[in-house]
Amino acid sequence: MVDTLVILAPGLLGGSVAQAARARSTARRIVIWARRPEVRLQLADQPWCDEVAESPETAVRDASLVVIAAPVTRIVDLVLQIAPHLPATAIVTDVGSVKGEICRQARAALLAENSPATFLGSHPMAGSALTGWANGSPDLFAKCICFVTPRGEPDASVVTRLTKFWQDLGSEVICVDPDEHDEIVAHISHLPQLITTTLGNFLSTKPVKWSQLAGNGLKDTTRIAASDATMWIDILAQNRDEVLRALNSYEDEIHRLRTALSNRDWTELRTRLERGKTWRDSLRT
Amino acid sequence: MVDTLVILAPGLLGGSVAQAARARSTARRIVIWARRPEVRLQLADQPWCDEVAESPETAVRDASLVVIAAPVTRIVDLVLQIAPHLPATAIVTDVGSVKGEICRQARAALLAENSPATFLGSHPMAGSALTGWANGSPDLFAKCICFVTPRGEPDASVVTRLTKFWQDLGSEVICVDPDEHDEIVAHISHLPQLITTTLGNFLSTKPVKWSQLAGNGLKDTTRIAASDATMWIDILAQNRDEVLRALNSYEDEIHRLRTALSNRDWTELRTRLERGKTWRDSLRT
Repeated sequence: MVDTLVILAPGLLGGSVAQAARARSTARRIVIWARRPEVRLQLADQPWCDEVAESPETAVRDASLVVIAAPVTRIVDLVLQIAPHLPATAIVTDVGSVKGEICRQARAALLAENSPATFLGSHPMAGSALTGWANGSPDLFAKCICFVTPRGEPDASVVTRLTKFWQDLGSEVICVDPDEHDEIVAHISHLPQLITTTLGNFLSTKPVKWSQLAGNGLKDTTRIAASDATMWIDILAQNRDEVLRALNSYEDEIHRLRTALSNRDWTELRTRLERGKTWRDSLRT
Repeated sequence: MVDTLVILAPGLLGGSVAQAARARSTARRIVIWARRPEVRLQLADQPWCDEVAESPETAVRDASLVVIAAPVTRIVDLVLQIAPHLPATAIVTDVGSVKGEICRQARAALLAENSPATFLGSHPMAGSALTGWANGSPDLFAKCICFVTPRGEPDASVVTRLTKFWQDLGSEVICVDPDEHDEIVAHISHLPQLITTTLGNFLSTKPVKWSQLAGNGLKDTTRIAASDATMWIDILAQNRDEVLRALNSYEDEIHRLRTALSNRDWTELRTRLERGKTWRDSLRT
């Protein structure tokens, strides 16, 4: 159990961390800071919030674990801001969808402020088309994959503590290097997002009636196209190089498939359809 | 209510038509023919099968409505085979995913045999990753879109009768010209299939571990990649030109998106993400 869990700038994920931690009794005390005063007033009424802090600095005073739930562009600034106020044993983590730059800069921020606290990145692969802490759920992390991203030779006890925290919220934890994480998610998350966004863009140029005829297949395929644009701009900006590499390869693959269809190369098309099916059948349910 | 409903060569869709028709009392009598004798024996035991016919010709003898549920490559041959044996008032339809060529050839087949029966194509946008009549469901057509594809100046009473049949099985019926149907499904069904098949192919070249880390987003996006390869080869062969056109435009769109990311053109990327979201949010649930 975490003694004092501090959540900074809760959105969907931060609100869900608080709710899950309360529901599963994984934190003795939950302290939350939000930027807007009216949100702080609302948070104070939530059963999963023991204390609302007026500033990030005061929020982290007694922190065992700080979860920075802000958008990826604001994480490092918050680390800099809280660094001088962190207890020595505190772990600071985030829930951002990219990890390489954030982990590099967050660690540098703690060093610059001579903080003995430790930054160790997290990325729970959970989400929803909805946003905001009010849409959070205590079950959001149940059975989800959560990356924990130590770099180099980390303090093993810190990795163990953070791993245990996410496991207690119901997640399956995978430890990988932050840059390897970014390469992986460029392929299994960011590329699929751009593929479906592009399909949505293309279909939006066709008669409205067509899309109203969509079966469940198209609906499933494009569900993630409804995700928040601002969040994705931030992610793409931070993971641009890996995503470009993945997009480039995907473009080549689409081109090869089109060539096969153009050439009526049914053998090649069958191979591709069967390989795609084998891959999809292999995903764990 | 249909008096005698005849289903030829039932797979997932044909089995579901029989089950739905029985569950919803939309046919007085259900006669089924399957090519393999051992399947005919199994069908005879089903509560939604009143009679198993030994041949397509005998099956259709008293038909009010014939549903040809065979793969798209075998539909026209079956129409030719049953044409001399159809009652004058019979309607013949199919459940194939392409309609232009099938409707042209099926109508020609009836004319060639001097049959006064009418062919009118159908395409219920229902399915599953599973195949075979044993996986059918009486609810497969509930709330699904079903195309009915009259060409030129059809007999209005035939269109009304077939429309009513699919509505009675729970579907929402859309009447469009067969060629327009093929253009629409090239975009809303065949293109999405190839996009996700290609994503699956690409990811299958990456470490197995990566795909095991997939969140629900990737699982939803690629669900249809698990579809049957043989069925898709047949569909692609029949709708090649329309699919090529759609694929070509999609490839251009992917290229533009990659260029925008390469140029750090966040304004363009935001426009695309927002347009994709607006489109997805507009789909009826």
